[in-house]
Amino acid sequence: MADYKIRAAARRAERDANIPKEYLVDLSKVGIDPLPLEELPLPAHRLAPHKPEPTKHYKDEDVTGVARTLLSIEDQAITEAPLEKLVRLLASGELSSVRATEAYLRRAVLAHQLTNCCTDFFSDLALKRAAECDAYLKEKGRTMGPLHGVPVSLKDQFHIAGTNCTMGYVGWIGKVSKEHSVITECILRAGGVPYVRTNVPQTLMRCETHNAIFGRTVNGFNRSFTSGGSSGGEGALVGMHGSPLGLGTDIGGSVRVPSAFNGLWGMRPSMHRIPYEGSANSMLGQESVSSVIGPLTHSLEGVVTFMRAVLGERPWEMDPILVPMPFNEEAYQLKDLQMMKASSSRPSSLEEEDKGEGEGKVKLCFAIEWNDGLVHPHPPILRALRETKEKLQAAGHTMIDWKPYDHGRALDIIDRIYAADGGEDVKRAALEGEEPLMFNLMQNGSERPHLSTYESWQLNKEKSQYRKEYLDHWQSTVNQTGTGRPVDAIIAPVSNWASCPHDTNDNVSYTTQWNLLDRPCVVFPVGFVDPEKDPKVPMEGEAFQVLPGGLDQEYWDRYDPERWAGLPICLQVVGKRLQDEELLGIARVIKEAGASFK
Amino acid sequence: MADYKIRAAARRAERDANIPKEYLVDLSKVGIDPLPLEELPLPAHRLAPHKPEPTKHYKDEDVTGVARTLLSIEDQAITEAPLEKLVRLLASGELSSVRATEAYLRRAVLAHQLTNCCTDFFSDLALKRAAECDAYLKEKGRTMGPLHGVPVSLKDQFHIAGTNCTMGYVGWIGKVSKEHSVITECILRAGGVPYVRTNVPQTLMRCETHNAIFGRTVNGFNRSFTSGGSSGGEGALVGMHGSPLGLGTDIGGSVRVPSAFNGLWGMRPSMHRIPYEGSANSMLGQESVSSVIGPLTHSLEGVVTFMRAVLGERPWEMDPILVPMPFNEEAYQLKDLQMMKASSSRPSSLEEEDKGEGEGKVKLCFAIEWNDGLVHPHPPILRALRETKEKLQAAGHTMIDWKPYDHGRALDIIDRIYAADGGEDVKRAALEGEEPLMFNLMQNGSERPHLSTYESWQLNKEKSQYRKEYLDHWQSTVNQTGTGRPVDAIIAPVSNWASCPHDTNDNVSYTTQWNLLDRPCVVFPVGFVDPEKDPKVPMEGEAFQVLPGGLDQEYWDRYDPERWAGLPICLQVVGKRLQDEELLGIARVIKEAGASFK
Repeated sequence: MADYKIRAAARRAERDANIPKEYLVDLSKVGIDPLPLEELPLPAHRLAPHKPEPTKHYKDEDVTGVARTLLSIEDQAITEAPLEKLVRLLASGELSSVRATEAYLRRAVLAHQLTNCCTDFFSDLALKRAAECDAYLKEKGRTMGPLHGVPVSLKDQFHIAGTNCTMGYVGWIGKVSKEHSVITECILRAGGVPYVRTNVPQTLMRCETHNAIFGRTVNGFNRSFTSGGSSGGEGALVGMHGSPLGLGTDIGGSVRVPSAFNGLWGMRPSMHRIPYEGSANSMLGQESVSSVIGPLTHSLEGVVTFMRAVLGERPWEMDPILVPMPFNEEAYQLKDLQMMKASSSRPSSLEEEDKGEGEGKVKLCFAIEWNDGLVHPHPPILRALRETKEKLQAAGHTMIDWKPYDHGRALDIIDRIYAADGGEDVKRAALEGEEPLMFNLMQNGSERPHLSTYESWQLNKEKSQYRKEYLDHWQSTVNQTGTGRPVDAIIAPVSNWASCPHDTNDNVSYTTQWNLLDRPCVVFPVGFVDPEKDPKVPMEGEAFQVLPGGLDQEYWDRYDPERWAGLPICLQVVGKRLQDEELLGIARVIKEAGASFK
Repeated sequence: MADYKIRAAARRAERDANIPKEYLVDLSKVGIDPLPLEELPLPAHRLAPHKPEPTKHYKDEDVTGVARTLLSIEDQAITEAPLEKLVRLLASGELSSVRATEAYLRRAVLAHQLTNCCTDFFSDLALKRAAECDAYLKEKGRTMGPLHGVPVSLKDQFHIAGTNCTMGYVGWIGKVSKEHSVITECILRAGGVPYVRTNVPQTLMRCETHNAIFGRTVNGFNRSFTSGGSSGGEGALVGMHGSPLGLGTDIGGSVRVPSAFNGLWGMRPSMHRIPYEGSANSMLGQESVSSVIGPLTHSLEGVVTFMRAVLGERPWEMDPILVPMPFNEEAYQLKDLQMMKASSSRPSSLEEEDKGEGEGKVKLCFAIEWNDGLVHPHPPILRALRETKEKLQAAGHTMIDWKPYDHGRALDIIDRIYAADGGEDVKRAALEGEEPLMFNLMQNGSERPHLSTYESWQLNKEKSQYRKEYLDHWQSTVNQTGTGRPVDAIIAPVSNWASCPHDTNDNVSYTTQWNLLDRPCVVFPVGFVDPEKDPKVPMEGEAFQVLPGGLDQEYWDRYDPERWAGLPICLQVVGKRLQDEELLGIARVIKEAGASFK
């Protein structure tokens, strides 16, 4: 056996040894096979759009119902409470943190047995911390902070001092973290209880989850489908209610895709709001398009709770790259939109700010992105767009069609930014552990060039030019909205499919678009795939043409209503850069219109 | 004559032809020699710290008083009104924009004859625009905006559609701008009247001002001294009261050094507040340390007027890189500081926000940076630091000594960032016009390397690491301040000297430090060099040791009280990143303590 496999097996055994034995279940009693350990394919490529070779290791099976058979009613109730309810129960002392942590540990172990989502279990640390939370509340009569006693799961990029964060790289096995990441510190200060870490793809630069140490994470709604990536461990864990709040990262869809593929609320905040300082990452020093930390959870209020909690810790005093913006409650209440008549009008003076109050709810204008001009979404996603449009329209909002502005160019630019070093960073990391590299080092048939600094500056100019054109495009909608403002938000697919079989999730155009533009996005669950409502139709039958680029027909043809049945369907709402709170307020409008079932 | 010199002469002649003839004066009547046209030295280098070879073309003469002899009392009164007063006069209609523009055009021509500060005169455009402003006010009874009718001078990086912005490069002669820069657009929307453009050094990467087209700009307080750079045309023009508001840019001191060398208030805002979109620049696409636009003017209120005016135009709707932060009036009133007890304490809730009111003026803690650990400031600068400390102390503020944190490392990192492309960008620009390149392509005795993208990412990591350490260093002062907060601001030299003879301004460590950290800085004038108060003393006499690095003694020895006599002395106050309004409020505290004479 290759040395890297031996080292990987040892690290895996270490993880397994830390699983609390009392929580392990015998899956054979419920007729579920244990997951196979699936080694990395060799040679491995990130993208193989024309020859998907889905793995044969898994059956089409939904394991989300297993908890109902194997867990107590109380454990189910605790672990199915949305975050904001959990926070209330813990803050009031009605539920102890130790009890909550036990319940979540138990359910995380079950989720892990069913989907292989975790890389670390910190049950001792977590229960000790939970007991401290309980004692604090009892003694002082107040909470430690807005996440008092809440178990929080962390993607395998976030350091906890004294533990080994590998990020799926064999070469990082045994490197013990000296300090917490700043985000860990913020979670602790806010009263949270880190208790597990979750799986990632090698390099992080993939929207599936598979690495040489921990193997593949699968989707609980259909184990032959991917849970997405790169925060796919979080997606599967939270999707299976094994965590009330998961922290992922997103440089091209890595929070949003796992949120969408597991039926969750999730958010990609704007760059430089949530502290990344001191976290592990691929391609550190690449500042052109930065990865951002975002939450995966079961409710919009959960997303808001996370943002308020972290921003309440004044993280800009710990991470120098952050914008020093506290959570803007007024923007969340959409007061700015009520106030602002048109973008071109002079902004109101301070005295005029209150005029919007008492005028009732603000009417918004949404644009629907039916497709991105590259690939049509599958029928379930199109239905979700239609239903969302109808519900928002019924609630009195204006709906227009979004004209995608040259998204192919965006995809090309961001792809070149990701690999501007010719893969040097990920090659070195893989070499360190002498493991196979799962990263597409080819581009248009030849090896990716390693750009010079001057060339990378020219690439940044392409990016800036595109951003400027897109902003102008957005602002120019002011004439179509009827609100006196440009469009307030875009409602868009997160992916062209609800999920897909392993190793075929090869289209990321719906997510990377907004990373390139640094637009905040909130993912919201709309429903589930239903073969009756979402039949397979020929593309022409939907009265639209095959899009250029060569992939549209093939991706469309992969849809199989029976195999997809029961998978969650999510969409995303896209807002204005660094106006994350306004976007959350807009997401609340969507929720209140009944467009999300959660 | 080389082709580039012919082209340069033609472009210069074009500028000269646009000087309104009626404003030209015969300098021989006041005994002043016309300035020579000084060609670029060849071969030319940016830095030659050990062998300064000051040019012999100039006499030590102060020409700031010439206007008193040659201009009418009314023209003097108009052009010596601080910006906020000019704004009031124009807004009330007491002074017409046409009259103000004529006065400033006349004084700009004089300043130009004396210092060679301008690259373009737009008198027709400006007078037409001024007449429009006047008509608007008369018809509508209100102003166009907060800069209604105010003449504004622009550094030769800001496009005006239909004109030729060369940025000092011969290769750019004749390229007509198709669109305004976004900053030009903002100035116009705010009611401003662009009327001249001002000189820059070739490449912009130098704190003096000299290029092959327009030659050298000199300092009006002593024409054998530099007006600084790269916004040295603005510095000289505004210093000579030829403009009420000059717009410069700063990537390493280029607003602050000319502000300081000409006795002005000036500001380097944080990155991504003021729109740079659509402006000419060197090294476009270099995003690691960005150049920022900032004002040079005669009063703090002038700086505030500029910031309010531009941010009031919602520039983030025109420039996608900007942080969407309107001017924060509360922060300018220092309400955040009144509210915040300690950085580690939980931030007050909305309900608690008003508690600070009525408690009287907030007491601040300033740190004084006596030196940066590399080079001691000359005696006049040290006196300014002492006097400022005393005045703030007398006003009840706490003063501590700043411990510079490894500024040599900062200087090394930013120097490598500036030239990470091995000078490729500036080489190409110089080659385009076949002109000699004035840029230091050497580093430690060998040619600068052109980094690969991977190497530039590693350099970004060094930068981020340094920024994090510096932030922690700043935050750690919480234990010394007595305010419950870390230090509120640092008062520091802008340069180790008040100005210096041409071609010897080779130390930029006092300014680049804050660009690397992206800290906003406000320059304020303190006084003038006085040989009696600022005698030349041996370094030991001041009870301090020569600093390591090899330049301290040499720079110290260059000081000559008689030559330096009468030069303005300025300092800068350094604040927290993206908290520009708070810093302006702190600058107001400094002004109110009497530490600035303007």
